[in-house]
Amino acid sequence: MHKMAQVSLKGAERIDDLQRAGLKIIQDPERFCFGMDAVLLTYFAQAPEGTEVLDLGTGTGIIPILMSAKTKAAHLTGLEIQEDSAEMALRSVQMNDLEERITITLGDIKEAGRLFPRASFDVITCNPPYLQGSHGIVNPADSKAIARHEMLCTLEDVIRESEKLLKPGGHFYMVHRPFRLSEIMCTMHEHNLEPKRMRLVYPMIDREPNMVLVEGVRGGNMRITVEKPMILQNADGSYTDEVKELYGF
Amino acid sequence: MHKMAQVSLKGAERIDDLQRAGLKIIQDPERFCFGMDAVLLTYFAQAPEGTEVLDLGTGTGIIPILMSAKTKAAHLTGLEIQEDSAEMALRSVQMNDLEERITITLGDIKEAGRLFPRASFDVITCNPPYLQGSHGIVNPADSKAIARHEMLCTLEDVIRESEKLLKPGGHFYMVHRPFRLSEIMCTMHEHNLEPKRMRLVYPMIDREPNMVLVEGVRGGNMRITVEKPMILQNADGSYTDEVKELYGF
Repeated sequence: MHKMAQVSLKGAERIDDLQRAGLKIIQDPERFCFGMDAVLLTYFAQAPEGTEVLDLGTGTGIIPILMSAKTKAAHLTGLEIQEDSAEMALRSVQMNDLEERITITLGDIKEAGRLFPRASFDVITCNPPYLQGSHGIVNPADSKAIARHEMLCTLEDVIRESEKLLKPGGHFYMVHRPFRLSEIMCTMHEHNLEPKRMRLVYPMIDREPNMVLVEGVRGGNMRITVEKPMILQNADGSYTDEVKELYGF
Repeated sequence: MHKMAQVSLKGAERIDDLQRAGLKIIQDPERFCFGMDAVLLTYFAQAPEGTEVLDLGTGTGIIPILMSAKTKAAHLTGLEIQEDSAEMALRSVQMNDLEERITITLGDIKEAGRLFPRASFDVITCNPPYLQGSHGIVNPADSKAIARHEMLCTLEDVIRESEKLLKPGGHFYMVHRPFRLSEIMCTMHEHNLEPKRMRLVYPMIDREPNMVLVEGVRGGNMRITVEKPMILQNADGSYTDEVKELYGF
């Protein structure tokens, strides 16, 4: 168990218990709070012992914080463009005494390939904005809108920069929406991050999937393993055994 | 109900009841017999009233024969490269009194774009060979091997020729194996047959999918609907309700 470091909260911020290895995270409900997507991505992603891991658009820092508990990765870096978010993520890292394993870097995904040395990461994770365009968005500084819409970076930005930053044979993990599956696969293929593993997440057994988890390998061959379906809820609305397990209920 | 025309059988051929609209089909167990794949494809595919439909690599003719019962398509054409198969499919068409709705054409998928007028079909269906290469195949004239391995045509041949033959906005339906999903999507995208609908077929709820059904639209936009999972068997080995329904049990 960690001895929690002192931490200060700002405005509407609160501390949430991650119910895993004693970890906690700072979130601001007026900004973007992490969702099940991020948790599922860390469940799907792998980072062997000693690896260098980068999370693109880390937001609250949820992904590197959970990955630090799940894996024996040597070091995890979270890149975040919004200054307020990056600063809050850094406080979460400090609160969990993880400064030696996790670095939060302020910067733009579109320029990630210049912010870090080329081919320097073994693993890249990303929970990017899902929606194209920014139709109807009133406030372009709205951090919820930035997290949901491709206002500051597109799917192609994420994939293009990941190719630059991954070592040959390095692994790329992303959670996204199924309606963009064709674009995801084609863009990954064009950028030499071959889709190698995929899992669809269905809210219930008789519903369309609402999330897709994808793993790509830099320089991999064109053969993909599609895994068994992940079903979130039983017919009676209770969580399935797999979801209970991954959430550590 | 049809009045069955007289038909002659050759060698080990047998007549199987399709248990739908009184249809029957000739199959030769020493050659390739149609599988669940073909049945699922005709369940997934749609052909509105009055449409022109082409089936690439029709084999026994199972797909146009089933589609003739399911749809009000104006006319269905089955293209088949193996002379024995084409001749047998033609006898099945005659046996079902379907000569006015179904034409069997002897010819090569790789040249399909020259065998028919350009952009002349509303719908193309295909249950192609799934496996790459022909490693270990002793007899290159083995019709089972031809149906399973890309010996006479590749995935790209099928997609490239379909683009030539479909009208703008025309629909392409294919059943394939999930391990080639990335290649399927990228090749369809490259050839302007945008993947628009997909369904994964899982043998059981806790297994990897073993088939994928894909619909593409010539000139469509890059947005795909991934449908609810198709599960074939319950935990006790019985067929699920959906499978019973589609097989008309």
